[in-house]
Amino acid sequence: MDHAEIEKGYVDLDPIFGPGSVAVIGATDKPGKVGHAIMLNYIDVGFSGRIYPVNLNAGSTIMGYRAYRSVLDIGEDIDLAVIAVPADSVPDVLDECGRAHVRGVVVVSGGFAEVGATELQASIVEVAKRYGMPMIGPNCLGVMDVRARNDTLFLPTFKIDRPKVGGVSFVSQSGSVGSTTLDLISGAGFGLSRFISYGNAATIDETDILRYLMHDVHTQVIVLYVEGVKRGRAFIDVAREVTSMKPVVVLKAGTTQAGAAAARSHTAALAGSDEAYDAVFRQYGFVRANDTDELLDFAKIFDTQPLATGSRVAVITNGGGHGILATDALYHNGLELARLSAKARRRLRGAMPGTVNIALPLDIGGDADAQRFEDALDAVGGEPTVDALIVIVLFQTPGADEKVVESIMNFGARREKPMVVVSVGGSYTRSHAAVMESSGIPVYRSASAAARSIAALVRYARYRERVRAEAEAAAVASKH
Amino acid sequence: MDHAEIEKGYVDLDPIFGPGSVAVIGATDKPGKVGHAIMLNYIDVGFSGRIYPVNLNAGSTIMGYRAYRSVLDIGEDIDLAVIAVPADSVPDVLDECGRAHVRGVVVVSGGFAEVGATELQASIVEVAKRYGMPMIGPNCLGVMDVRARNDTLFLPTFKIDRPKVGGVSFVSQSGSVGSTTLDLISGAGFGLSRFISYGNAATIDETDILRYLMHDVHTQVIVLYVEGVKRGRAFIDVAREVTSMKPVVVLKAGTTQAGAAAARSHTAALAGSDEAYDAVFRQYGFVRANDTDELLDFAKIFDTQPLATGSRVAVITNGGGHGILATDALYHNGLELARLSAKARRRLRGAMPGTVNIALPLDIGGDADAQRFEDALDAVGGEPTVDALIVIVLFQTPGADEKVVESIMNFGARREKPMVVVSVGGSYTRSHAAVMESSGIPVYRSASAAARSIAALVRYARYRERVRAEAEAAAVASKH
Repeated sequence: MDHAEIEKGYVDLDPIFGPGSVAVIGATDKPGKVGHAIMLNYIDVGFSGRIYPVNLNAGSTIMGYRAYRSVLDIGEDIDLAVIAVPADSVPDVLDECGRAHVRGVVVVSGGFAEVGATELQASIVEVAKRYGMPMIGPNCLGVMDVRARNDTLFLPTFKIDRPKVGGVSFVSQSGSVGSTTLDLISGAGFGLSRFISYGNAATIDETDILRYLMHDVHTQVIVLYVEGVKRGRAFIDVAREVTSMKPVVVLKAGTTQAGAAAARSHTAALAGSDEAYDAVFRQYGFVRANDTDELLDFAKIFDTQPLATGSRVAVITNGGGHGILATDALYHNGLELARLSAKARRRLRGAMPGTVNIALPLDIGGDADAQRFEDALDAVGGEPTVDALIVIVLFQTPGADEKVVESIMNFGARREKPMVVVSVGGSYTRSHAAVMESSGIPVYRSASAAARSIAALVRYARYRERVRAEAEAAAVASKH
Repeated sequence: MDHAEIEKGYVDLDPIFGPGSVAVIGATDKPGKVGHAIMLNYIDVGFSGRIYPVNLNAGSTIMGYRAYRSVLDIGEDIDLAVIAVPADSVPDVLDECGRAHVRGVVVVSGGFAEVGATELQASIVEVAKRYGMPMIGPNCLGVMDVRARNDTLFLPTFKIDRPKVGGVSFVSQSGSVGSTTLDLISGAGFGLSRFISYGNAATIDETDILRYLMHDVHTQVIVLYVEGVKRGRAFIDVAREVTSMKPVVVLKAGTTQAGAAAARSHTAALAGSDEAYDAVFRQYGFVRANDTDELLDFAKIFDTQPLATGSRVAVITNGGGHGILATDALYHNGLELARLSAKARRRLRGAMPGTVNIALPLDIGGDADAQRFEDALDAVGGEPTVDALIVIVLFQTPGADEKVVESIMNFGARREKPMVVVSVGGSYTRSHAAVMESSGIPVYRSASAAARSIAALVRYARYRERVRAEAEAAAVASKH
């Protein structure tokens, strides 16, 4: 066990995510270089800590900051060193970090196990362990902590949108899946807590990171992209623990033979059989996503909606066709259409025009306005037979405007059940969807995405419920 | 058989799609009214024909156009009458249209069979048939012909984006699915030929429309949303014929018992068993979409890419993780990863950096620039063992910029195989994706959507190939 692990019982990544001071080793004035892009990002995102550019060939300054030839020359406490120097130089640079008591390092440099240089990788592992220095990488994008404005990514800010602060933490073995998903998250209406691309995972792997995020108060939902788990037994140990505390949405790549072969040459991941992974994911309540769309769709509902174990879903729509598609989608995903009580039907009969058929899916008509949406939500939303709601708002219709958005947001603020909105369309629709998402109402682009996401929520809620019941039963048994 | 049918052997919808003159019956100066929205759209989209507002209570003008109290007062040839008056008045108005020799009508008014007024609906059917006047509706949005700038939709232009001119025609039983999909199409990078929301299908139904579009030279791809087919036998007759000429992508709603029940109350559609529909769709080579996303994804590939019957797909990527996801997605969709010949491998070895693993999926590295994309495309694209290409361009990386877009577009213009691009990300990515789509290269938001779309293309190409072979065999047999 490393020094850092002994303190907290798990690897402490605090200095890496929320450092007070950062040394960028390999920093340079030359645009296009990784060390330049990293410096630029620290400056652009407004990092509030101290920044120390380090380069063996440095003059007196780099990008306007006082420059150092070695991390040992800085003479101040360094929380995080981001290392972007050629692979050959990494062992020495890392040793200097250890001697300078740097509290954590991110090695973005590539050229290690992923290209067969296993000895070189072993040598940096040895150095990191010798100093008990938590090390992310090599061959990774590193970390982003939106709250701390800490961003080791060497991707230009104009190329990738940066998300707002939120409760989702995203762990990615792949830098490319990591960066694209980050970019999508920025437009997806929910906020990010922490992002980590851990690359070759020479020391710190997905298991360490899960354990750390499990204890992280800012992380409500964990999203994981993984090609192969490094330590199966340890992963299983943490798996049960973490999912009893917060949802973990996982996208596993390499599910087919050919995909697994590709994964081996990518991050040298032992992909294992998909059946084995699926069994573990199921047993420990991981929410499995089949593609990057589902990864985001599921993260969004977990980030914003309360858990619910019931599968009876009410559908309210101002477009009949989408109501039918939503109904189909419910049953395709193991959910069911809720039924209305006589009381709710009477109430709706009083509030809706005569042409509205009082049943679920409730098609309130293409001429529905905010008042009608409000009446429908009030009558249906309060029903004890309704476990969750899908509200389909087609903004192409004459009556659907910002007042409908307001009605839904007002109702959303009051209710205790999961509610998602489906709004399908172009620019006018997207602008209204963004407003709803900013108030914590997830908006989906199709009824099928909405139904899949509710089904994921219900599956996880039932897992949590079962785990809780088992724990209670065990506690009772132990008393007797 | 109606008069119009006798001429061409099928119902001629030319006057409805591309009229030289339009009477808007129910036109009004009052904003918010359907008749106002329709007039506004005709003016806004720049309809080049003559516009005649008609209203029983009209003064001398409506919205600046000379107004008429009856279509009979116009005294000019009217190709299309768009009827937006209360349901009770429709029979009389329709009779006037017949007497005025109007060549086609769209009845947008609701209040017929969908609310149980079957007699009223029967009465308008009687009038339309008596005059041999093709009638779309009632209870529909009507038609949009992008080329003719003919737009009967009563949806404000600011609420719904209008697509550019293209080869996809979209037939929707549901107005809401129709309008939302139109809105999405506008942002989806492909153009529309004709749109038709046919509502209650009192006379003209999906079968008539398919037959018409089959003969329409501007329609390359037909997209169909249907809740239930009106005339099963006739539909099957046209089904075989149309799919031997152009692809038909179909989204069938009401696939579950509850969904079918909802469909019955929506457009009084007899949904039938999903198994029966699926059997027909399979037998006649319809491309079935499972949701609105797939509807668009499939339409896009058919609109822009050549058919190919081979299932060996090459994947080129500047992000390893997405290459693995794409590989998985190929096999999940019945496709396979292509293999490279020794010659192509040699060529790639010469052109790629030493760190690039020369195999498919070909991960050309996070630092790949336009030249490397070009070299990879040239070496892989020409391989006879490669039937189709997925090019994954992650614009978050430093080397991926407008020059890469240019390389891909240049290659795209030369090749004869299906090629799709996957670009996942936010605003910077979307701007580059839009450029590629404008040159006929479909861009998908995920590898799984790309693989599903290629699989749909291959399935249909194989159907066409089989039909062609059967026809040839039959021709040979008939000679002996």
